Amino acid sequence: MKTGAFGIDIGGTTVKIGYFDTAGTLLDKWEIPTRKEQNGEWILPDIRDAVCAYMKEHNIPVETVAGIGLDVPGAVLEGGIVNRCANLGWGVTPVKKIMETMLPRLPVRVANDANAAALGEMKHSDAYQNIVMVTLGTGVGGGVILNGEIWTGAFGAAGELGHIPVNPEETECCACGKKGCLEQYASATGIVRIAGKRLESSGEDSVLRKVPKLTAKSVMEAAKQGDALAVSVVETACDILGRALASVACVVDPDAFVIGGGVSKAGPMLTDCIQKYYVKYAFHASRNTVFKLAELGNDAGICGAVQMILSEKELLSTDCG
Amino acid sequence: MKTGAFGIDIGGTTVKIGYFDTAGTLLDKWEIPTRKEQNGEWILPDIRDAVCAYMKEHNIPVETVAGIGLDVPGAVLEGGIVNRCANLGWGVTPVKKIMETMLPRLPVRVANDANAAALGEMKHSDAYQNIVMVTLGTGVGGGVILNGEIWTGAFGAAGELGHIPVNPEETECCACGKKGCLEQYASATGIVRIAGKRLESSGEDSVLRKVPKLTAKSVMEAAKQGDALAVSVVETACDILGRALASVACVVDPDAFVIGGGVSKAGPMLTDCIQKYYVKYAFHASRNTVFKLAELGNDAGICGAVQMILSEKELLSTDCG
Repeated sequence: MKTGAFGIDIGGTTVKIGYFDTAGTLLDKWEIPTRKEQNGEWILPDIRDAVCAYMKEHNIPVETVAGIGLDVPGAVLEGGIVNRCANLGWGVTPVKKIMETMLPRLPVRVANDANAAALGEMKHSDAYQNIVMVTLGTGVGGGVILNGEIWTGAFGAAGELGHIPVNPEETECCACGKKGCLEQYASATGIVRIAGKRLESSGEDSVLRKVPKLTAKSVMEAAKQGDALAVSVVETACDILGRALASVACVVDPDAFVIGGGVSKAGPMLTDCIQKYYVKYAFHASRNTVFKLAELGNDAGICGAVQMILSEKELLSTDCG
Repeated sequence: MKTGAFGIDIGGTTVKIGYFDTAGTLLDKWEIPTRKEQNGEWILPDIRDAVCAYMKEHNIPVETVAGIGLDVPGAVLEGGIVNRCANLGWGVTPVKKIMETMLPRLPVRVANDANAAALGEMKHSDAYQNIVMVTLGTGVGGGVILNGEIWTGAFGAAGELGHIPVNPEETECCACGKKGCLEQYASATGIVRIAGKRLESSGEDSVLRKVPKLTAKSVMEAAKQGDALAVSVVETACDILGRALASVACVVDPDAFVIGGGVSKAGPMLTDCIQKYYVKYAFHASRNTVFKLAELGNDAGICGAVQMILSEKELLSTDCG
């Protein structure tokens, strides 16, 4: 009988590993460093070692483990093939095949990290089967969940909401090489960029002129305290993000938008502001789409990754393993 | 045994009716007028009469008909309920229920017309399971086909590509009440609007100054002949549309975009121009998305509508009917 499964979230600094029961409850979690030397060739063997050591230490027979769900910070193609992953030093890497060769009795599923987080949040709230998650961190990530499953798209690029073109007039480059991507305005970096420009171009007084280091957090806090310049920065970011999400609704018309990532720690003040602009730009039929804050924080990745295993009934049956 | 099915496309002027074999081949088609008097209450009874008369005339036993696929120019909710349809005079109308009450032995499926057209084109080309179709007519319609099926969304608004917000600076209103929708630039009406403005604001010579009535067709033809002003109008429309489709790809990342509607009669000159701008704005992973011209013309609706019946295996089995 299957009694557990692993959910693993590979980040640029650490690999988060979670062991779950088959109902999706997190039983144990820990981290190992992400060894990026030699083009990240040790990352997957390190994970194998960590999983094996854990199973040995806790006397978990391999036949009771339903499998391993893994997520990575890059696009994932059909068959669990990662299509380059600059953060990890990887070129095109058949992650599923490599892991299943090292651990022949454990089925492996692979997803993009933002997609896995979206799946984790969807399962956690358990209210909607069709959601779009936006992760506002250093960049802007996204995940599209349709009928309870990750939608990856033809080239693994579905849910790349950070690269929705929002401003054809932009002169500065996005990390992706294009100009005018959503990420340049609605990420933590984007918010700092807008604030920096506004502080430079206006003589307006602002508490932001006194902070030792301008961060998205300091802008959000100043806005909460009513600082006019900070408020205008948050309004600009939310206007652009709300408009981008109105575009998203014209495509997949989800039940709910889930807002996550570091910037979302600003709470309902942020989601309310995004929703205000969303309603302004949305097609009338989609104006009541629900806006929610993400709830899983740093566990979203491992929780979503394991769901790829737990949602496949065949992997939970006694026969395979 | 099921040997046929009906595909019916309800438009504002005529209702197109097609009778198909179960392989999806169109055997016969005809039109009846759309009677919009008394809030369109005769439209569905007229369709019932037409279907019954056809079956009687051709000796088609009801037990050989797999069902009726119907499309309407409005949003369709779960359960075949049409959520208002201004063009037909309908309020919220349970089309599936009404039709199945009038024709108890024929299962009915209902879709939005642009969605049905997208499904028809997908089945016709038979190359991709995941496509986004854009219909450039009086307005801009759209349909999203994922895993070979229409994606309708939470409020029936998936694929409403014409209302993607593309220009927050726009001062004129779209038919939907918002300002700056894609439809205001990339529809036949939008192209005429851009051309009219450009003719008014510039002193530039153009063959368009001599046409008796400015139409999207005359703009396209002038552009083909190299008229500089007409070329600039087409470039503007394709720039805005290519950018909107780059947004679409960041959400669902389809295998292909299919361009249809009256404006698409301009042919490869149009799709090439849209694709040129799409590639400029698209996220790198999605730059190779295929662009295709629609091929079914006015039959796309009936061909897609019938597919809703023919793709349900249970409806084709001998037992139900």
